[in-house]
Amino acid sequence: MDAIDVIRAKRDGAALTPEQIDWAVDAYTRGAIADEQMAALAMAILLNGMTRPEVARWTDAMIRSGERMDWAELDRPTTDKHSTGGVGDKITLPLSPLVAACGAAVPQLSGRGLGHTGGTLDKLESIPGWRASLTNAEMLDVLRAAGAVVCAAGSGLAPADRKLYALRDVTGTVESIPLIASSIMSKKIAEGTGALVLDVKVGSGAFMKTVANARELAETMVAIGTDHGVRTTALLTAMDRPLGDAVGNAVEVAEAVEVLAGGGPADVVELTLTLAREMLSAAGLESRDPADALKDGSAMDVWRRMITAQGGDPDAPLPSARETHTVVAPSSGVLTRLDAYGVGVAAWRLGAGRARKEDPVSAAAGIICHAKPGDTVTEGRPLLTLHTDDEARLPRALESLDGAYEIADGKPTLLPLIIDRV
Amino acid sequence: MDAIDVIRAKRDGAALTPEQIDWAVDAYTRGAIADEQMAALAMAILLNGMTRPEVARWTDAMIRSGERMDWAELDRPTTDKHSTGGVGDKITLPLSPLVAACGAAVPQLSGRGLGHTGGTLDKLESIPGWRASLTNAEMLDVLRAAGAVVCAAGSGLAPADRKLYALRDVTGTVESIPLIASSIMSKKIAEGTGALVLDVKVGSGAFMKTVANARELAETMVAIGTDHGVRTTALLTAMDRPLGDAVGNAVEVAEAVEVLAGGGPADVVELTLTLAREMLSAAGLESRDPADALKDGSAMDVWRRMITAQGGDPDAPLPSARETHTVVAPSSGVLTRLDAYGVGVAAWRLGAGRARKEDPVSAAAGIICHAKPGDTVTEGRPLLTLHTDDEARLPRALESLDGAYEIADGKPTLLPLIIDRV
Repeated sequence: MDAIDVIRAKRDGAALTPEQIDWAVDAYTRGAIADEQMAALAMAILLNGMTRPEVARWTDAMIRSGERMDWAELDRPTTDKHSTGGVGDKITLPLSPLVAACGAAVPQLSGRGLGHTGGTLDKLESIPGWRASLTNAEMLDVLRAAGAVVCAAGSGLAPADRKLYALRDVTGTVESIPLIASSIMSKKIAEGTGALVLDVKVGSGAFMKTVANARELAETMVAIGTDHGVRTTALLTAMDRPLGDAVGNAVEVAEAVEVLAGGGPADVVELTLTLAREMLSAAGLESRDPADALKDGSAMDVWRRMITAQGGDPDAPLPSARETHTVVAPSSGVLTRLDAYGVGVAAWRLGAGRARKEDPVSAAAGIICHAKPGDTVTEGRPLLTLHTDDEARLPRALESLDGAYEIADGKPTLLPLIIDRV
Repeated sequence: MDAIDVIRAKRDGAALTPEQIDWAVDAYTRGAIADEQMAALAMAILLNGMTRPEVARWTDAMIRSGERMDWAELDRPTTDKHSTGGVGDKITLPLSPLVAACGAAVPQLSGRGLGHTGGTLDKLESIPGWRASLTNAEMLDVLRAAGAVVCAAGSGLAPADRKLYALRDVTGTVESIPLIASSIMSKKIAEGTGALVLDVKVGSGAFMKTVANARELAETMVAIGTDHGVRTTALLTAMDRPLGDAVGNAVEVAEAVEVLAGGGPADVVELTLTLAREMLSAAGLESRDPADALKDGSAMDVWRRMITAQGGDPDAPLPSARETHTVVAPSSGVLTRLDAYGVGVAAWRLGAGRARKEDPVSAAAGIICHAKPGDTVTEGRPLLTLHTDDEARLPRALESLDGAYEIADGKPTLLPLIIDRV
């Protein structure tokens, strides 16, 4: 087998054979295919596509590049959620303990933010003492103690994906549905969950800008999961405006805790409950209503045990920013638009996100939205509060809010929060 | 400017701006764009194409990455030929001295063979003592002494192309008309010739398999040359069967010397004279008939001066092979097909070509064709003689001749030797 033959086949529009795929993924992981060769292949895949059988085999080869975790010794069914990422998407924080409180085990391997979308691990790290890196044995201990664990994926899990993702990031080959689907699913399947609910975001703040693209990605991922014996469903959900009121790290943790305490913004509560029901149903635990676990405090109990088991102090005050700046409504009327991408970039520029993988993030940086699309606002009253540790970051953050909101007479045109189920 | 933005623009089907092209070529030459990024960009160019203005600018940026030679101090007009490569294509050897004998200066920078097509420098190096590497000052000396020089391009000439060509070679991105055209033309324009004739080969033994592709390449290159003030024309010529009778290194030199002595195979003589007339016409020297310079020995005189000036001994015996093997006609009839690619691969496997840039070639290896398509052959009489220094190479060479020739009753269907002029 030869790298150039595989590249040429995909370049010329052929479907790669199972043998070509197995060889290419393994050879790249071993270093026998050079980065420049895999970059050319990734671009050919992006432009010429992959058939469903090709994507399935590619995913399988990435799973086989590392270990596949196994939670058979737990006495509960496992279930997990993956979101394709958005602005203000802190759903994992209330959702994992909630689902655990209803009787499932949630072994969630999560990621960090890159660009304008936040990362779950970055958010949780704003809790003093909390550790993202666990060994497999520690993961099992936390799962036993709390029922849910959210931590970083170890280097033994789908190493082919780890290497390929870093390459795609610098070669303009991220935006390929087959490559996105196989990247997500190889990690989730290797993680060993028995059931999986995918939250595929749609809109300006998401990776998928259109419902059609999101549906294609969702269908591709559901097929891969099902083929691998993971009960998989997907929801398409709105990311044209931020999710909830808080966008950042510590501010999102605070909002998640409000939800666990029975409060919080309506959209966050609704999406958390909808996803919880999907996860429980996929795990065969339909009987318990997650709304009860929010009301009776059992979800909050799991949250406290989960944070504590990973070294965090759930009672410690969260970091707060040195500087705040308030943007007021320039006129009175209805807030008809609050663009997820604009708000996401602003939070990122305030320090909540990173431009390069090795950059640190600021725990305290972020944005609080005082109004959501559809709300009536009054001239001169606060619309957004920007939080940052570094005043010098304000001007560029404000720049990205230019044109990101609109106050008018009409009603906003918004995507429904839950667009569809695949 | 950012590499990912440039890759994305081409990936998404946009034309690159002059600023993007200048930056990308310069940044890649400096190492500020990584190999994996340029590989992704090259694949996007291969699949999405380039407009004529993009190809022109890309070529220009590659020329500007190094020096541009200048022959203004010569008292003769300069003219050169470039062939896209084929099997048995030794035309440069008789052509350069012939055109010099007719009053032009021929400053030809030439290449080595890779794969089944031979390289002019490899062929000339079978002449004892002959040196391919000259300084610019030595090139000028040979041009003054002989009127023609054939040597290797120095590292100062289009270094961007040198780096990009090596990358394309390992990333399946060679077969792109814009990238082929800009690679050839950047070197030829940097070489400083005032006029240029392109011999674009068509057929199984050539890079371009169809007349349509060859025409597109020819038109692209003629436009680039013209834009850069080089009087450029192109001929599309046949490469469905080998050119001449000899395929290899020393055997091709011997055939070239026969042509300079007034003999040689009819197709080699015809193509040499046709290209000589084109080169002289492009240089404003239509009045002299190159056929006279073959007859009166003046072309042979230039050849001897040119070889001598580069350290070679034109009278030394050429290397001959340790082993020969004769393939005889399996039946009587008309030779209706002798496939250029099959014969080229056989010669390559006998040792005449190299698989990797760093491999040596055998001077003596090659093939003599005793019949050409259209000739009548007799069962049991020699059809091909294979020459090699290493008997172990014979079986695989013979394998590539399987099905490469056909003896039948009918007439052969061949491309005309000169297909068209662009």
